[in-house]
Amino acid sequence: MSKIRIAIVGYGNLGRGVEMAVARNDDMQLAGIFTRRNPSEVQNATPGVPVGTMDDLMNQRDLIDVVILCGGSATDLPKQTPEMAKHFTVIDSFDTHAKIPIHFANVDASCKAAGTVGIISVGWDPGLFSLNRIYAESVLCHGSTYTFWGKGVSQGHSDAIRRVKGVKYGIQYTVPVESALEAVRNCENPALTTRQKHTRECYIVTEEGADRAAIEAEIVNMPNYFADYDTTVTFMQEADFLAVHNQMPHGGFVLRSGVTGNGTNQMIEYSLKLGSNPEFTASVLTAYARAAYRLVQEGVTGAKTVFDIAPSYLSLLSPEEQRAQLL
Amino acid sequence: MSKIRIAIVGYGNLGRGVEMAVARNDDMQLAGIFTRRNPSEVQNATPGVPVGTMDDLMNQRDLIDVVILCGGSATDLPKQTPEMAKHFTVIDSFDTHAKIPIHFANVDASCKAAGTVGIISVGWDPGLFSLNRIYAESVLCHGSTYTFWGKGVSQGHSDAIRRVKGVKYGIQYTVPVESALEAVRNCENPALTTRQKHTRECYIVTEEGADRAAIEAEIVNMPNYFADYDTTVTFMQEADFLAVHNQMPHGGFVLRSGVTGNGTNQMIEYSLKLGSNPEFTASVLTAYARAAYRLVQEGVTGAKTVFDIAPSYLSLLSPEEQRAQLL
Repeated sequence: MSKIRIAIVGYGNLGRGVEMAVARNDDMQLAGIFTRRNPSEVQNATPGVPVGTMDDLMNQRDLIDVVILCGGSATDLPKQTPEMAKHFTVIDSFDTHAKIPIHFANVDASCKAAGTVGIISVGWDPGLFSLNRIYAESVLCHGSTYTFWGKGVSQGHSDAIRRVKGVKYGIQYTVPVESALEAVRNCENPALTTRQKHTRECYIVTEEGADRAAIEAEIVNMPNYFADYDTTVTFMQEADFLAVHNQMPHGGFVLRSGVTGNGTNQMIEYSLKLGSNPEFTASVLTAYARAAYRLVQEGVTGAKTVFDIAPSYLSLLSPEEQRAQLL
Repeated sequence: MSKIRIAIVGYGNLGRGVEMAVARNDDMQLAGIFTRRNPSEVQNATPGVPVGTMDDLMNQRDLIDVVILCGGSATDLPKQTPEMAKHFTVIDSFDTHAKIPIHFANVDASCKAAGTVGIISVGWDPGLFSLNRIYAESVLCHGSTYTFWGKGVSQGHSDAIRRVKGVKYGIQYTVPVESALEAVRNCENPALTTRQKHTRECYIVTEEGADRAAIEAEIVNMPNYFADYDTTVTFMQEADFLAVHNQMPHGGFVLRSGVTGNGTNQMIEYSLKLGSNPEFTASVLTAYARAAYRLVQEGVTGAKTVFDIAPSYLSLLSPEEQRAQLL
C-alpha cells in the first residue's frame, strides 16, 4: 500500500506536532514542510524531508495527498484554507467559533470548484469536544450540555498578560471550578455564570523595577480577558518560572446531563488531560488527514467538519478489523 | 415535515425505553408495538398506539419507516434481525461481541437483497463505548485502551445468582476497582487481571430455611461468572431488598492512555453514569433510527455499525445549525 503523503504548512508548535504525529502513523509519510520563513533557517525537520517555500509547495502538487494547515485562526487560516483548497485536499484547525459558517462556505466553494476535500475546525475544541456534544445531545435530547476547559495554558490570555508593561515572562492557566463540575456531575443542572465556571491563574516574571501592584491591577481588571473571572496573579523568579512553566498542557470536560423516561437522570462525561495541547491537536489533524485521503479516493468533494465524517474513516484498521476488535 | 414512523418489536424493558424515547423526539412517532405475546395482555402502551402481533407487523410495511428490535442477543436477534431486514429498515442492540462479524454478514445480505438499512450493535457497549475506542485509538495511535463497567446491574450475573437453590431475590452489581482506574488515569499503563479491574457485589434474599453459607460458597466459586473476581454476598430482608434494589443503573469508563511526540502523556476518558440502562440504550437506538431513516432517503443499503455513521446523521439539527451551535 502506498503511503499517504502529508505536507505541513506552517512550522510552529502545531506544525512540529504534526511532524511527530505523521512519524507515529505507519500509513503516512511526510512529503515536505512549507513555510513563509526562509527554509534554510528552519531547524529540527525530520532528516531527509524537504523544507520549502510556499512557491515550492505549488510545484509539488503531484507529490502531496493532503496538506495540513498549521497556521493561526486569526489571520492565517481564513485566507489560507480557501486558497490552498483550490489546489490540495486540506485540513485545518480553525477555531474561531463565530466565524465557522463563513469559513466553511469559503472552503466549500474552493473545494467544489477544484474537486478537493477540505476538513475544517479539526482538533479538540472544535473537534473531539464538538463530537461529544453532538453525540450526547442526539442521544439525550432533553438535558443540558456543559463544556469546561483546563486546567491548561490559554495562548490568547498568556499573550494578553505578556503585553502588560513591566511583564517579562507570563503564562495563564484556565482552571475549571471543581464545585461547579461536581454540581453538574450530580445532575443539579446549575445555571453557571462565566465567573462560576472557570478561574484564571497568572504566573509572571517582571522586568526589573516594575510596579507589581499596577501590573496585577491591570491584569485582573482587563476587559474580556480577566474582568469577568476570579483571577490570581503570582509573581515568580525567572529561574523558577522557566523551570516550571515551560509546557503547554491543556484539557477539559464535556458533560451532558439528561433525562429519559419519566425523569431518570443520565450523565455522559468526556474529558481530556493533555500533556501537550499542540501535540494532541496535531494527532487529531493527522487522523482526519487519513479520512480526507479516503474521501478523495471515493470521489467526495467539498468542505467537511468532524460531524460529516464517519468514524470508520479515521482508523488504520479495516472495517472488518474495527468490528472484530473495537465494536 | 412528516415524522419518522417507528415500530417497536419486543416489549420488555428495552422496548418500553424506546417507547418513552420516541415520545421525547419531536421528529418521530410510534407506529406500533409488536410482540410475540397476546397483544391484549400488553399493558402500558402509549394511548392510541396499536399493539399487534408479528403477523400484524408484516401487514403494515407501508406505515413503518424503521423497526427497532428490542429482543435479546442470545436467541432473538441472531434470527430476527436478518429476517426483519428483508422487509424493513432495522436497528438492533446485538451485544454478543464474538458473534458480531457473522451477525453483520447475515444482516448485510438481507439488507442488500431488500434495499434496506440495518444498523446493528447500537447502544453503549457496543455503541458509544465503541465509538470512543475508535476515535481515541485513531487519534492516539500509540497507547493502551481500558474499558471498565459499572457500577451497575449485570443482568446475566443477576440471573446466575437467582438460579442458585434457596435464592428468592438476587441482584448483582459490577463495580470497577477504583485503584485500577486511578492507575490508568495516572498514565501508569498497568497490566490488569480480571480480578484487578472489577469486583462483584451480590445482594440476596433467601427462601425460608435456606443454607446461607452454602449459597455464598456456590456463588463466589461459580466458574465464569464469579470465580475470577472478588465477590461479596450480602443477605437482606425482603422489604429492604425490594425498596433499594429495584432500579437498573449502569455505566462505565473508556480510557485511552496514549503518548505523542517524544513521549508526552495524553489521556482521553469517557464515562457514563446511567440511572437506567434500558432507557439509555433505548435513547441511543432511537437516535440511530433517525440516521437509518436518513440513509434510506439517500439510497444507501446494507448493514452498518456506529462506525459507519457520520455523527451529523444523528442530530435533529440541520448541518448549518450543527456547525453554528455544536462545533
